[in-house]
Amino acid sequence: MQVPSPQGFRTYLANVGLKDSADDFMVLVSEVPASCSAVFTRSRFVGPSVLLSREAAKGGTARGVVVLARNANVATGRQGLANAEEVRRIVADAVGLTETDLLIASTGVIGRQYPMAELRHRLAELSWPFPAADLAGAARAIMTTDTRPKVVSARCGAATLVGIAKGVGMIEPDMATMLAFFCTDAQLAPDELDEAFRNVVARTFNAVSIDTDTSTSDTAAIFANGLAGPVDRAEFTDALYDVALQLVRAIARDGEGASKLIEVRVSGARDDAQAKRVGKTIVNSPLVKTAVHGADPNWGRVAMAIGKCQDDLDIVPERVSIAFGGTELYPSEPSAETLHRLADYLSGDEVLIEVGLGIADGSFTVYGCDLTEGYVRLNADYTT
Amino acid sequence: MQVPSPQGFRTYLANVGLKDSADDFMVLVSEVPASCSAVFTRSRFVGPSVLLSREAAKGGTARGVVVLARNANVATGRQGLANAEEVRRIVADAVGLTETDLLIASTGVIGRQYPMAELRHRLAELSWPFPAADLAGAARAIMTTDTRPKVVSARCGAATLVGIAKGVGMIEPDMATMLAFFCTDAQLAPDELDEAFRNVVARTFNAVSIDTDTSTSDTAAIFANGLAGPVDRAEFTDALYDVALQLVRAIARDGEGASKLIEVRVSGARDDAQAKRVGKTIVNSPLVKTAVHGADPNWGRVAMAIGKCQDDLDIVPERVSIAFGGTELYPSEPSAETLHRLADYLSGDEVLIEVGLGIADGSFTVYGCDLTEGYVRLNADYTT
Repeated sequence: MQVPSPQGFRTYLANVGLKDSADDFMVLVSEVPASCSAVFTRSRFVGPSVLLSREAAKGGTARGVVVLARNANVATGRQGLANAEEVRRIVADAVGLTETDLLIASTGVIGRQYPMAELRHRLAELSWPFPAADLAGAARAIMTTDTRPKVVSARCGAATLVGIAKGVGMIEPDMATMLAFFCTDAQLAPDELDEAFRNVVARTFNAVSIDTDTSTSDTAAIFANGLAGPVDRAEFTDALYDVALQLVRAIARDGEGASKLIEVRVSGARDDAQAKRVGKTIVNSPLVKTAVHGADPNWGRVAMAIGKCQDDLDIVPERVSIAFGGTELYPSEPSAETLHRLADYLSGDEVLIEVGLGIADGSFTVYGCDLTEGYVRLNADYTT
Repeated sequence: MQVPSPQGFRTYLANVGLKDSADDFMVLVSEVPASCSAVFTRSRFVGPSVLLSREAAKGGTARGVVVLARNANVATGRQGLANAEEVRRIVADAVGLTETDLLIASTGVIGRQYPMAELRHRLAELSWPFPAADLAGAARAIMTTDTRPKVVSARCGAATLVGIAKGVGMIEPDMATMLAFFCTDAQLAPDELDEAFRNVVARTFNAVSIDTDTSTSDTAAIFANGLAGPVDRAEFTDALYDVALQLVRAIARDGEGASKLIEVRVSGARDDAQAKRVGKTIVNSPLVKTAVHGADPNWGRVAMAIGKCQDDLDIVPERVSIAFGGTELYPSEPSAETLHRLADYLSGDEVLIEVGLGIADGSFTVYGCDLTEGYVRLNADYTT
């Protein structure tokens, strides 16, 4: 895969013994100071990676991130914190940075310590500057049960923007969930970058659900080093939204065991928050997910899922409408021929469900995937 | 199955064309006036059955219930309401009651009208008094995808109490979810019965989750006709709790595709409500459910699920403990031998997960089941 790289970013990839032989260790660093914005899981059971990264990103500047795949370093106590600090310190020393210039992220099995001997051995080889800026390789190195690397790029004026992400299960973002990292040579002040990033995350990473489970490790961060000069802020936000949305769709499509992307557009809501709540309830419903998996235009399960928003007393069945693939199924009663045609539509790999609430003009779109035997098999077998 | 019957209750069972040939229509009626308490789904998408039954139960007295299986009569518009009213009126006329003496409940596919021609035809045969009091048959008639009828009885002084229930999917009770009916010849005033029933429902039917989906039709009701005379109220509540808990455990064990009952006991919480919230989050986690299905003592997923209670800021990993089958796994680090033994334990058909939060002394126990390929297959194939 040929992926362009923004100026002044370098990557380091290695195998440190977490995966059999593939790269499982990745460092992304800007050669020059950069603005940084980051969002993290809201889990009450976060590991040291999130704690250290939150602190590092606080000031609005940072130089990059260290990522370890296949080990979450969560629920590992003081030893886990000391290990995370040591790994980050070794990298910072090698690159000539202070520790708090770097974020650290870790994803995988919970409750297991890093293989520190192997890590120290491998990291002794680190030397700066890293020889490459291999963002496609970086996207591959951060994968766990992902079946495909996720990397998307865009241009914005003279600047280049690249995003990479991983995440296939334990995904229900109340905050950014999964790992996603963006680097750009666009020039933006920390507060400008932060505003654009949070705006985009709300409509993309916080709009995807795979299985309602929230990771203890989720982190999304962007680094902007300014080497390409200033950009139009609106244009940059649009480009960032496009890249993030493509990553989110790739994540949903690659959900554990998934065979279909489900997009749920809710409109006519009291406000966007209500639309999001209803959309999440639909896209998370196991019965909706299995119906889509079975290519069954079972709008009754969508009605049931809407009904679960029990505190939304302004939702009344008489004002609700439900459509699959642009064809209304409720309240208009579909013919047998229509249902037959929709079963065909649902056997495709992308399913659009539209719901109108008939209250006001709030709207929100969420993304998810079907629930399959593959999800169960994968997660019943995935080891501790 | 030999099931005792409280004095003065009669049942009528028939096939009205909703199932192929098995009974799918059930009436349970007390020969004499009875106290009644009932709780219903909080879904925003309820059908006419719930609307009519809520109204009928309001006064604290009612004589019985009409149940139709395999058709929810939800999202069926005015026609659906008219049909529900007509069915109930036909039964009430035949029995010599007024319509509002009867509750009506319906469960199954959403968005399909009753087969009224067949129903009118069959109900023309109704004559009172019904010949039998066949509560085992009644439990069978209300089944949809249940694999086993659920009927439990108990004695309380001179009185008999029998409960029947159905429910295997679309179960996440914020209120009573599933259908459950109790009849007893104990003598209790409406307010006494209501207090005992709500107390028991909170700890039983509202403590079970199969798949986080909330039915549009769920109804639990109890009828007490007093023919056996007064009972000790505490003793009655205990008996009712025992019967309800046995039904709930049977429901969880018979969850769609389920192979194991999961019981999650949370203690050391700030209050019982927090313990319930944490317990539900654990028992509903697809990753916990698949780990149990795979007989994997993956306590890390339990930690992850606890972490999802993001607004419970008093939950801190340092005070949490997690045990499977009475063996602590966190914070004490289990040996390989312990994990091996627990994998054996988890391959049984009942799994106990205990969580301590180390905050105060709130506690709550919830019930659920594992998530299997069978659940996905069943719900991908179950037809509209």
